[in-house]
Amino acid sequence: MTGIPGFWAVIPAGGSGTRLWPISRRHSPKFLHDLTGSGQSLLRATWDRLEPLVGDRILVVTGVAHEDAVRRQLPMLGYDAVVGEPSPRDSMPAIGLAAAILERRDPEAVLGSFAADHVITEPDNFRRAVAEAVVLARRGELATIGIDPTEPATGFGYIRLGEPLVVAGAPSAHRVDEFVEKPDLETATRYVDSGEYRWNAGMFVVGATTLLELLAENHADMVDSLRTIAGDPRRMADLWPSLHKIAIDHAVAEPAAAAGRVAVVPAALGWDDVGDFASLTRLVAESSSLPGITAIGPSDDIISIDSTATVAAGGRLVALIGVEDLVVIDTQDALLITRPDRAQEVKQVVETLTAQGRTELT
Amino acid sequence: MTGIPGFWAVIPAGGSGTRLWPISRRHSPKFLHDLTGSGQSLLRATWDRLEPLVGDRILVVTGVAHEDAVRRQLPMLGYDAVVGEPSPRDSMPAIGLAAAILERRDPEAVLGSFAADHVITEPDNFRRAVAEAVVLARRGELATIGIDPTEPATGFGYIRLGEPLVVAGAPSAHRVDEFVEKPDLETATRYVDSGEYRWNAGMFVVGATTLLELLAENHADMVDSLRTIAGDPRRMADLWPSLHKIAIDHAVAEPAAAAGRVAVVPAALGWDDVGDFASLTRLVAESSSLPGITAIGPSDDIISIDSTATVAAGGRLVALIGVEDLVVIDTQDALLITRPDRAQEVKQVVETLTAQGRTELT
Repeated sequence: MTGIPGFWAVIPAGGSGTRLWPISRRHSPKFLHDLTGSGQSLLRATWDRLEPLVGDRILVVTGVAHEDAVRRQLPMLGYDAVVGEPSPRDSMPAIGLAAAILERRDPEAVLGSFAADHVITEPDNFRRAVAEAVVLARRGELATIGIDPTEPATGFGYIRLGEPLVVAGAPSAHRVDEFVEKPDLETATRYVDSGEYRWNAGMFVVGATTLLELLAENHADMVDSLRTIAGDPRRMADLWPSLHKIAIDHAVAEPAAAAGRVAVVPAALGWDDVGDFASLTRLVAESSSLPGITAIGPSDDIISIDSTATVAAGGRLVALIGVEDLVVIDTQDALLITRPDRAQEVKQVVETLTAQGRTELT
Repeated sequence: MTGIPGFWAVIPAGGSGTRLWPISRRHSPKFLHDLTGSGQSLLRATWDRLEPLVGDRILVVTGVAHEDAVRRQLPMLGYDAVVGEPSPRDSMPAIGLAAAILERRDPEAVLGSFAADHVITEPDNFRRAVAEAVVLARRGELATIGIDPTEPATGFGYIRLGEPLVVAGAPSAHRVDEFVEKPDLETATRYVDSGEYRWNAGMFVVGATTLLELLAENHADMVDSLRTIAGDPRRMADLWPSLHKIAIDHAVAEPAAAAGRVAVVPAALGWDDVGDFASLTRLVAESSSLPGITAIGPSDDIISIDSTATVAAGGRLVALIGVEDLVVIDTQDALLITRPDRAQEVKQVVETLTAQGRTELT
């Protein structure tokens, strides 16, 4: 058996990534793109990272509109490895359905949920941390991976570490005192300086049945619906739309942490959620042939005179003269020019286009 | 007879306008484009301005590669109203050939030479000034129009006014003391403050034969060649390539001014040579619907959040967020992003592309 026996990977592949428009689109979201110029899409890189841990024990949960694209990018997946959501209902129904499907296949299944659109530059550390988390999950814990913070980021939630746990096979484990929301800069700086906080990357490792039991404590109806759908997929159409739209953090992780039932494995992963073009600018190295230019994708079509910018050339020549600190994203039908410190506002362009009825561009 | 009897317009339509790349291209130069969003090309606007003065007495001298495009934009021109140059040899051979052709058609012909790619926002003032210049030309003068400067521009040459002339029909006329080269800012400021200088827009009004006689004083061989070609166009192929590459300013205007044989009609024309994107930014009004945005062409495809820029959208959406003082020129195959104060360096991009052998983009 390949990887960790009885361990399954669940990849929720959702979200449209509007802050990465015009690369990321409604019909072609972030996870399908090679945003960092690595040569493969974020989804494919996620699969690559997980395959040594799970072999073919993998389940991708994605919107029905993206099923075909997911199968094209991951042709090695079997038919029942992709689950299509009729509509987006946030992470809890997506991961909960995966848990309900997996407990039918293997009552002892432990699942690890890892987003399809994050970057990890230290995959060995990732796999070591996951292995520890699986040990914790086998003992009935809801386990998470806590990312060692490299800066006082205000765009991520944090995990406050509690006491170290003494568990054979999970030497790094700590109790989780609490999950905290995205802080302001001052608070984030205090968190990072204290050494007691880790970034919450939304990675959860837990027994499939344990997860559903934790969920049932506050959302028993949802668990009933998810188990019904898992037993009879024809019920998806009528039950799915009625499911409460809620993130796994709020539905399960935060109440479980408050009850002292969450464990964390801290790890240095080189992790990033690639949330916007500022994040992408940090992730991609400056082009060796074009000083000052960070090229997303090939740089052959870029001419730079005395400029600094992050540039995605979309097949046409991009010439920059005397401009500083820009983000230039050129695609077939849309061009974005902004600055890293305004990258959060990109979603406003998508909102404007939607309001104008120009949804073909969103 | 339409316009001023015996007066002919010569339009040298040359120059590739590399500082206006990527709109202006080798195979589709500046004068063929509607750069200001006026609804017509610079060439067509030049014709419109001249037609009331000359009717169909017009001669366009252009590169053979552009003959067809010129005829398409000016379909009212007769066959012999367009003269094709086999290769660019600067303005003197072009205007000199026109003079040699015109003196054969009309020994008394006075010609006025006006570039195909300039903008004039006060056409009535222009026509009044030209009418005065024709009066001067009929008296044997080499006449020029001196543009009232509106700022201490360093990108233009200047004309120093001499004594007023007392000529019936040319009340504004002055002698020209000298033509001076593009000054530095300090010198330009002194010129403008003195009131004694006008911009040299390269507009010359002169008898066709007078011009050739002035030219013969220093370039007798060129005049022989030009008259030979005018008499037998089949000689173009062998004679044209041997002509000295020289501007009319150096070949005729400067020596004639030194000899006290040049007159000037000062005028306020709202003139600009549309030399680069900084010039274009000054010429085009800010978009009424998009604060901070100067749109070259339609603005429907521009979304601006808190930005200032001159934007030519080339058929795709252009979204700007939080950027200042940019020039964004988007075309089918090339995108330029620069700043008005770096606009002169655009030609370096064309040079780089040429050096890279990517002439399809130049």
